[in-house]
Amino acid sequence: MNDQIPGAEPSHTIANLEIAAGKKEGKHYGMVFQDSDLYKWMETVGFALAVENDEKWEQVMDDVIDLLEQAQESDGYLNTFFSVNHPDKKWTNLKDDHELYCAGHLIEAATAYYEATGKEKVIKIVSRLVDHIISVLGPEDGKKRGYPGHPEIELALMKLYRVTNDQKYLDLCKFFIEERGQKDPHYFDVEAAEREGRDRWGFINYDYFQAHQPIREQTTAEGHSVRAVYLYSGIADLAAELQDEQLLDVSRKLWENTVNKRMYVTGGIGSSAHQERFTVDYDLPNDRAYTETCAAIALIFWAQRMVQIDGDGKYADIMERALYNGALSGISLDGKSYFYVNPLEVWPHTANHREDMKTVKTTRQQWFGCSCCPPNIARLLASLGQYIYSSNEHEAYVHLYIGGETQFTLNDHNISLKQETNYPWEGNVNITISTEQLSIFTLAVRIPGWCKDSTIMVNEEKTTYTVEKGYAKIQREWKQGDQVNLNFEMPVEVVRSHPEVRENAGKVALQRGPIVYCLEQADNGSNLQDVTLSGDIELTAKHEPDLLNGITILTGQALQTDRTQVQDQLYTTNSYQKVPKEIKAIPYYAWSNRGEGEMVVWIKEQ
Amino acid sequence: MNDQIPGAEPSHTIANLEIAAGKKEGKHYGMVFQDSDLYKWMETVGFALAVENDEKWEQVMDDVIDLLEQAQESDGYLNTFFSVNHPDKKWTNLKDDHELYCAGHLIEAATAYYEATGKEKVIKIVSRLVDHIISVLGPEDGKKRGYPGHPEIELALMKLYRVTNDQKYLDLCKFFIEERGQKDPHYFDVEAAEREGRDRWGFINYDYFQAHQPIREQTTAEGHSVRAVYLYSGIADLAAELQDEQLLDVSRKLWENTVNKRMYVTGGIGSSAHQERFTVDYDLPNDRAYTETCAAIALIFWAQRMVQIDGDGKYADIMERALYNGALSGISLDGKSYFYVNPLEVWPHTANHREDMKTVKTTRQQWFGCSCCPPNIARLLASLGQYIYSSNEHEAYVHLYIGGETQFTLNDHNISLKQETNYPWEGNVNITISTEQLSIFTLAVRIPGWCKDSTIMVNEEKTTYTVEKGYAKIQREWKQGDQVNLNFEMPVEVVRSHPEVRENAGKVALQRGPIVYCLEQADNGSNLQDVTLSGDIELTAKHEPDLLNGITILTGQALQTDRTQVQDQLYTTNSYQKVPKEIKAIPYYAWSNRGEGEMVVWIKEQ
Repeated sequence: MNDQIPGAEPSHTIANLEIAAGKKEGKHYGMVFQDSDLYKWMETVGFALAVENDEKWEQVMDDVIDLLEQAQESDGYLNTFFSVNHPDKKWTNLKDDHELYCAGHLIEAATAYYEATGKEKVIKIVSRLVDHIISVLGPEDGKKRGYPGHPEIELALMKLYRVTNDQKYLDLCKFFIEERGQKDPHYFDVEAAEREGRDRWGFINYDYFQAHQPIREQTTAEGHSVRAVYLYSGIADLAAELQDEQLLDVSRKLWENTVNKRMYVTGGIGSSAHQERFTVDYDLPNDRAYTETCAAIALIFWAQRMVQIDGDGKYADIMERALYNGALSGISLDGKSYFYVNPLEVWPHTANHREDMKTVKTTRQQWFGCSCCPPNIARLLASLGQYIYSSNEHEAYVHLYIGGETQFTLNDHNISLKQETNYPWEGNVNITISTEQLSIFTLAVRIPGWCKDSTIMVNEEKTTYTVEKGYAKIQREWKQGDQVNLNFEMPVEVVRSHPEVRENAGKVALQRGPIVYCLEQADNGSNLQDVTLSGDIELTAKHEPDLLNGITILTGQALQTDRTQVQDQLYTTNSYQKVPKEIKAIPYYAWSNRGEGEMVVWIKEQ
Repeated sequence: MNDQIPGAEPSHTIANLEIAAGKKEGKHYGMVFQDSDLYKWMETVGFALAVENDEKWEQVMDDVIDLLEQAQESDGYLNTFFSVNHPDKKWTNLKDDHELYCAGHLIEAATAYYEATGKEKVIKIVSRLVDHIISVLGPEDGKKRGYPGHPEIELALMKLYRVTNDQKYLDLCKFFIEERGQKDPHYFDVEAAEREGRDRWGFINYDYFQAHQPIREQTTAEGHSVRAVYLYSGIADLAAELQDEQLLDVSRKLWENTVNKRMYVTGGIGSSAHQERFTVDYDLPNDRAYTETCAAIALIFWAQRMVQIDGDGKYADIMERALYNGALSGISLDGKSYFYVNPLEVWPHTANHREDMKTVKTTRQQWFGCSCCPPNIARLLASLGQYIYSSNEHEAYVHLYIGGETQFTLNDHNISLKQETNYPWEGNVNITISTEQLSIFTLAVRIPGWCKDSTIMVNEEKTTYTVEKGYAKIQREWKQGDQVNLNFEMPVEVVRSHPEVRENAGKVALQRGPIVYCLEQADNGSNLQDVTLSGDIELTAKHEPDLLNGITILTGQALQTDRTQVQDQLYTTNSYQKVPKEIKAIPYYAWSNRGEGEMVVWIKEQ
């Protein structure tokens, strides 16, 4: 973001801020939402500092915060694109201009940094900014009844509300959510008329913005997938805070439509590159999947909220699916290159020759001009702890199985949990309880949706527990050093799609535990479309510690066309014989770390 | 073209000519190549008049020809777009401006009308036009070394040469073909520099125009498919005329690449909507096939030339495949609506929601703003006789089996052939010879490439013949009334693709005789992707005289998923059972005559 990576597309992000702060001459360069990349990075640093102090990074943050303070205008306005290039155009195009989106990311960064360090300066900056927003937007006479074209600030305002307990942030969030999609008139029409119709990217249908109808009437996931799922996350936050069951049901219905009709097996969402959007039920092409990394991350955000609200493992199942597959695929194993688009099939032979596949990159890129995804991965991974556990007064939830330690306060006792596991490669998880005194509480451990056979032991003995909504709930008096051992049987599974997913008709995917597999050309040669699995294929899982940073591979005997019979003709009435073909599948997230080549997730089944 | 069809997109074609002729005020409206639609219609009328006199149509033609004479400028220039709107821009952008393309279509129209009526006026108009072209373009000093961005005039000049026997037309054709793709400098760069770089549609790579290298170096079918195959047809004409074996080999190599690597089973070509072009070997997506009707027609033109040059049935096989499938699908059964794009799968559920499928129309249209295809179908069907037969001094060839009569002069004897057949529904063909005297010649009848079992009888007795390059050659002394009976066994065939065609992996197509079949929703319900054929499916052919103007349908028992087992989840480790499913396949050309619905040519195989 300070343009120090040789060969990467220039970003100008910090430079924009320096210009706005009057420390540098020049014009804003980059996307209208360029500031948000910085804010996502700041949030990442905030999360990292919450885990471990680092004076150097804290100093860098404080310098950036000083710069933000200098760039902020006297009325609280803060957005380098408009401050520098278009001061007369502020708040004239909420639909396209991302001012509220950038504000939302700054709020998220501020709360993360404040929670890590207790330093209030950045909170004061965002307070001034939000006060300015409240002076411009809202239901009161004389204000614009506007809301963001790109939702994000809703969930951010809920974070700010939880940090400050100031009702005005909750009210603003509620206003944005309830006002969205209201008609007679539609706010996007009102502001378009005022600016004489000019749009930033030409007119786009309102469903792209999830503003085609009031949110309480929406039942299907529509439009730009990241916008949609950021919005749905904010809705879940607001509904939970207000205990608004009707609004919660909106989130639940949208969830069911998303995951049961419009989600890839990797947890990727958004099947159309055009408008980066949802399309229609069961439209899930693999080679032209858009499945933006940010969208899989957004799905994780939403899932995290829903599992905490409903305590239902089905949300955590999707959170886990997206985390290990469609989100993690966005970053290379060395952490230095990224996919914006995460297709489930890649054909280098055609991808560079077909306009309709031009958004598919066949290898990860160092950075993007529109670089929303890299800092989004960073902030997700830096805050992973927030996804693994949650608690209420009496219950400690373990949603994900990832080694580490955490603390809870349960029934006023300080409890510590330590997880040790080789998950996702092995299904064995050991949890050690630390408590200074005997303590009665419920430990709720998720039985993954993919798992058909599990055992749970406490101190090496079978224990009693109830299973509620996918969680094994062990209620007992816990003492220091208690050991909980979970074992989830993890065979290789053959996964099939709903028969209306036409791109997957006659095809299967391979999964083991939460990991979705793929075939890559590096292991299996080219023409992966010709690989055929028989229904009763035996696949062997084997851990390869030296391959791709340590992965478990699957091997087995498939079939492929006997190429010695094939002649140089396109069409034939011959039936080619099949010959055995040894295959080796690797985790989908690990693909494209060995150069360019074909890749498929869905494999033909005999 | 005179804008008299209510509801169809306006064409303005005749109006443009009236304005150029000074009979009407106004500006040119329409595509830069709008004139060519009229010329293709004129050629069609010429072909129709060759078969049957019609005073009314001859009068219409003579009126149009008078109008053309009035629109022609004093120096011979004739193109309404430039004469009316841009007289200062003539011959400044051969790459984009279609002036030579329009001239080519006028030449074709002129030769057809002249051959039908003997009237020379239109030949004189095109002579003046070509003289003008020769004064502007050519290898001599002071002329532009230009050639058309859209090839077409090459094959037209060869027709004019054959009608007039004037060497200058042959020379101009040769110049255009040999100059194409020459570098140091490239002509398209030269003219671009002169007009300061302005392109009509922005810069497009030279392979789009088949101008990326000299034609004698080209070995793969590249770029805009109609341009390519018009060019290859002109090359074949020129090479045959000059007996230039090297140039003929260029055509042969391009042919093999086209039909063995880049052609759909329907005879459609051009697999990318973007630039309406060829892409790479084996890239043949069905749902995003472009396969422009004009391209299938152009392939028929090229095949006709190659079969006459090489006497090889493999060319006629493709001619027949394109004719009965990918070309014929371009027009509705009532002759009133058209496909520009001929996909092999159509999914109305998604086609209207995916930008990458937006070129696919789910039903035929009445007309197009860019309406190259409708008059191209018309001129093909009106001149069908030229494709059925050919002859040399001693041999009469029957390439296609279509009822009708024709005359040959063989060894100076006038011979007449009468074909009677229900082909393509039945494989039985009866040919009756008429001759005024005993006559020794060879009757060469094509044994279709799809046919594995044929019998040939003369006067109800087995006869001796040799088979050469797919033709059964019966040499004998023929007498008045001799009967030749051909029987081609026509079972239902299951067709498979080369294993590198990834879109067809695990799928089969159905064919009977030359007819490629499809499943349509009207007969088989929706979710056609779920229909599965077992390897040993028994399919029954049955003629239905009242269905879709009389077609032979195929019926049989396939399988589909037992939907009673399917739950509302996208992914499962369950294996769904299959249940029997009666299917009914109709000829591909006849699809989309019963409203909007799904259609597939390639069907999943178990």
